[in-house]
Amino acid sequence: MYPWKSILSLDTQTKRPKYLQITDNVIKEVSAGRLQPGQKLPGTRMMAELLELNRKTVILAFDELLAQGWLEVIPSSGTFISKHLPVTKHHKIENNGFEKASGVPDLQNDFGFIPSYLPKSPTAIIMDGGSPDPRLAPIDWLYKESRSLVKSSRMAQKLLAYDGVQGDAILTKTLAKYLSETRGLSVSEKNIMITNGSQMGIFLASNSLIKTNDVVVVGSTSYDAAEWTFQYCGSKIHRITVDEEGINTDHLADLCQVQKVKIVYITPHHHFPTTVTLSNKRRMHLLQLSIKFGFTILEDDYDFDFHYKSNSILPLASLNSSGQVIYIGSFSKVFAPNLRIGYLVAHEHTIEILCRLRRIIDRQGDHLMQHVLAEAIQSGELNRHLKKTLHIYRQRRDNLVRLLNKHLREFVEFEISEGGMAIWVRFKGISLVSLKPVINKMGLYMDIDKDLAKDHNSLRMGFASLDEEEQERAILILVKAIGQLSS
Amino acid sequence: MYPWKSILSLDTQTKRPKYLQITDNVIKEVSAGRLQPGQKLPGTRMMAELLELNRKTVILAFDELLAQGWLEVIPSSGTFISKHLPVTKHHKIENNGFEKASGVPDLQNDFGFIPSYLPKSPTAIIMDGGSPDPRLAPIDWLYKESRSLVKSSRMAQKLLAYDGVQGDAILTKTLAKYLSETRGLSVSEKNIMITNGSQMGIFLASNSLIKTNDVVVVGSTSYDAAEWTFQYCGSKIHRITVDEEGINTDHLADLCQVQKVKIVYITPHHHFPTTVTLSNKRRMHLLQLSIKFGFTILEDDYDFDFHYKSNSILPLASLNSSGQVIYIGSFSKVFAPNLRIGYLVAHEHTIEILCRLRRIIDRQGDHLMQHVLAEAIQSGELNRHLKKTLHIYRQRRDNLVRLLNKHLREFVEFEISEGGMAIWVRFKGISLVSLKPVINKMGLYMDIDKDLAKDHNSLRMGFASLDEEEQERAILILVKAIGQLSS
Repeated sequence: MYPWKSILSLDTQTKRPKYLQITDNVIKEVSAGRLQPGQKLPGTRMMAELLELNRKTVILAFDELLAQGWLEVIPSSGTFISKHLPVTKHHKIENNGFEKASGVPDLQNDFGFIPSYLPKSPTAIIMDGGSPDPRLAPIDWLYKESRSLVKSSRMAQKLLAYDGVQGDAILTKTLAKYLSETRGLSVSEKNIMITNGSQMGIFLASNSLIKTNDVVVVGSTSYDAAEWTFQYCGSKIHRITVDEEGINTDHLADLCQVQKVKIVYITPHHHFPTTVTLSNKRRMHLLQLSIKFGFTILEDDYDFDFHYKSNSILPLASLNSSGQVIYIGSFSKVFAPNLRIGYLVAHEHTIEILCRLRRIIDRQGDHLMQHVLAEAIQSGELNRHLKKTLHIYRQRRDNLVRLLNKHLREFVEFEISEGGMAIWVRFKGISLVSLKPVINKMGLYMDIDKDLAKDHNSLRMGFASLDEEEQERAILILVKAIGQLSS
Repeated sequence: MYPWKSILSLDTQTKRPKYLQITDNVIKEVSAGRLQPGQKLPGTRMMAELLELNRKTVILAFDELLAQGWLEVIPSSGTFISKHLPVTKHHKIENNGFEKASGVPDLQNDFGFIPSYLPKSPTAIIMDGGSPDPRLAPIDWLYKESRSLVKSSRMAQKLLAYDGVQGDAILTKTLAKYLSETRGLSVSEKNIMITNGSQMGIFLASNSLIKTNDVVVVGSTSYDAAEWTFQYCGSKIHRITVDEEGINTDHLADLCQVQKVKIVYITPHHHFPTTVTLSNKRRMHLLQLSIKFGFTILEDDYDFDFHYKSNSILPLASLNSSGQVIYIGSFSKVFAPNLRIGYLVAHEHTIEILCRLRRIIDRQGDHLMQHVLAEAIQSGELNRHLKKTLHIYRQRRDNLVRLLNKHLREFVEFEISEGGMAIWVRFKGISLVSLKPVINKMGLYMDIDKDLAKDHNSLRMGFASLDEEEQERAILILVKAIGQLSS
C-alpha cells in the first residue's frame, strides 16, 4: 500500500484549506515521479479513513484534481492518476523550494560595483547624508486629498487605471509653470516627464545617452549612485578636480581637447558631497564648453529648494540654448524620500524616447499622488511647506554647527553649508573607517562612505532629518566613541 | 544708453517676484554676452525710473545679484557687472529654452522598438486588453490606513524615509506566508523582493540574466512589453507554437537540442494573449526540460487570482527544485493598475543581485503603501476583495459573451476564457486594422495590437473594467462601426 498518510500529510499551521493541501501534495508527488501516470487511487471513503479526514474534504480534493486534469475516472473501475502526464524518468522534480534549491540561475551580470543595502537596527539613531525630515511633511494633507479624489468614481477610473507613461497630465502642466516661476526654465509640459525620484531620471538619461566606452565626466568626489548608473551603462568615468567654486571647468576644457566627452554630470547647487555652490564664472564656462564640444550637461538639482544665504541660484538649464542640458529635480527631498516623485526636463524629442524606456521599466508611476502633488503646487501647500522647512533646517544646521564646535572642535574641520541638508565634515586625528563599527555598536549610524572615508577622512553629516535633541544624542555618542578610540 | 527697459522687461503673468525677474534677466544678458564684465550699471534710483518700478524692488534685485556674485560694488565709483566672469565670445548662450532649443542631445539609443503612448480622449470608452476595475478596489480603506499609519511620528519616520531596496520588511514577511498558503511556494522573506508591478520584475530579471545574443524563448504570440524588455537586453527571441494546451514543449525540446536557451518566458495561467491554461503535461515537461538544458523559466503569473473553472492552478514555481524558476506576481491586477506593487520570487542570491540593480533604477518603491498592503493581507481585506471581484468579473465575462453572441455572432469566433480578465476574439469578414480608426473616431478604444491584428485579426477584449451597461455601449459602437465598414 502506498504510504498515503505520510505522503499527503497536512500542515495544521497554515490557513490553506485541507482539500487544497491534499491537491498540492498529489501534484507534487506526481511531479516528483513518486506517483506514476495510470496508478490507481483508493476510493474517497478509504482515503478519508487513511488520512483521518472527513470524506467531504477528500471528495473536494479529488474534484479539484479531476478539474485540473491530474486525475481521471474510468467508469466502473476507479480513479487514476491521469495517463496523459509525462512519465518522469531522468529529471526528478523535487519540491525543494526556493530556499533549498540545489542550483540558481546563471546570472550574466551581478552588478558587483553596487553595494548591497545593510538593514539598520530599528532603535538606532540615523544621521543620514542629507535627507529631509518626513515628520515635517504635510503627509496627512496628501493622503486626505488622495482619499477625497478617488471617492469620485470618475476620478478613480482615471487616476487608478493605466495612463500615460510621461506622468499625470495635470502635474506635467502645473510643473511647467512652476519651473518657469521658480527656476526660470522656459518649458512646456512636453519637456517634462515624471520619474520615481531623481535616481530614475539619472537612470533613464544615462541609458539613452551612453554607449559602451563613452566618457562621462564627474567631480573628483561625486554622487555614488550616479556613478554606479554610468558604470552600468558601460561608460568610462573621468574625474576632474573640485574646489571651493565647484568642479574645475579649466580642467574640463583641457580634457575636452584630447578626449570626446559625452556627459558632464553635475550637482551645481550644491556639489555632492562637499556642498559648495558652482560659481557663476564656472557655470558660464561650462555652458560654453558644452556648446563648443557637444557634450550633454546632466544637471542634478536635488538641493535647489534649500539655500540659506541668498535666493536659490538659477539652474544651468535656465540658460539652455541648444538643448545641451538635461535637468533633473525631485520632490522626494522636499516632502519625504518615500514619496518617489521626481521629474526630468529635456527637449520634447528626448522626453519621448525616455518614455519608451520607462514603459518597460515599470510602466508608470503613481498618478494619483502625482495629481495630489499638482494640487499642492496650485493651492500653495508646497510653498507653505518649503518656507516652514527652510526655516527649521536653517536652525538645525546652526545647531549642528554649534554642537560640532562645542564637542568636537579638535577633531573636525568644516565650512558652514550655504544650503542643502548636510555639512561636509573632515575628521582630524581619528579615522572614520575605525570609528564606524564603534558608533554602530553604540546605536548610531552615519553616512560613512567607504571611499570618501578612506581618501578624505570626511563624511556628510545631515542636519535636516534630526531635531536638536536627536542631534545632540548623536554627537554625544560620537564624542564617547572617539574617547574610546583615543584612549 | 543700454536699453534697460526692453532688456529687463517684466512678465506680469507670472507669480515670480519682480526683483527675481530683474535678477534672472541680468543673468541671462550677462550669459548671452550682451552685458559685459566691467560694464557699469545705473544707480538704483535711476534704474527704478528707467524700469518704472519702486526703488525698493531694484535694491532687492541688486542685493540678490551681489550675493550671487554677478555684480560687484566699487566704493565711490558704482555698481558693475563682475569682472571675474568669463567674456563670452564664440559661443553665445541664448535662452532659447527647451522648446526652441537649436539642438538636442545625441542619443545613442532611441528604443525605437517600443511604441510611444498615444493619449486617449477623456470621454472615450476604453475596452482594455484585460485590466481590473479600480472602482471596485478598497481604495478608501488603503488611504485611510495610510493616513492613520503616518499619524504616528515614529511610523512616519520609518515608513517615509529611505529604507531597504528589497521592500518593506513586513510585506516581504507577510507575502512569504501568503504565497505559501495560496500558491504552494516554499519561500522565506529572503526569496522575495517588492517591485513596481510585474513589469519591473521582468526588467530586473532580464537585465541580470541576459547577455547580448542570448536566446529567449517566447510563445508564437506573447506579451509585447516582455518581448521589448528582452530586446532591450540584446537577446535573440525565438518563438515556439502555442495551442490549446499553451506553449508546445515538444517544439521547445527540439529547439534545445540545437540551440542553447537562456530563458523561457511563460504566462501559464493564462497564456497572453490567447488566455489558454498551460496543461499539466506541458508544465511537467517544461520543468524537466529546464533541468536538462539549464534554462531559467521566467513565470509571469499576472492572472493567478482570477480563475473561474476550478481553483487557480499552482504555479510552476511551487515545484521549483533547482532554482530554475523565477516567479513574478502583482497586486496591480488585484486592486488597480496605478497601485504599482508587484513582487519577484527567486533564490536568495538572485534577490540580492536584483536589489543592487533596483538601487540605481529608482532606489525603492512606496514602502508606506507596501506596509498597508501587508495589513490588507493579514486582516483579510485582500481576500474579501478577491472574492467579491472574482464573482463580479465572472458575471462580466458572461455578459460580454452574451453580447458578442447577440450582436456580433457572424463576425467573431472565441473560446470562453477559464480565467483572467479578457476574451481572445478572432474577427471574421472584417479587418481589425481598418476597424481601429473607425471605432476611435466614434469614441471607443480597444486594445488592438498592430501585429496581432495583422497576423491573427484578433484582439483581447477585456471584460473586467467595464460594467454591463458600459460593455453594451462598447459593443453597440462596434456593431455600428462594422455596419459602416461593411456597407
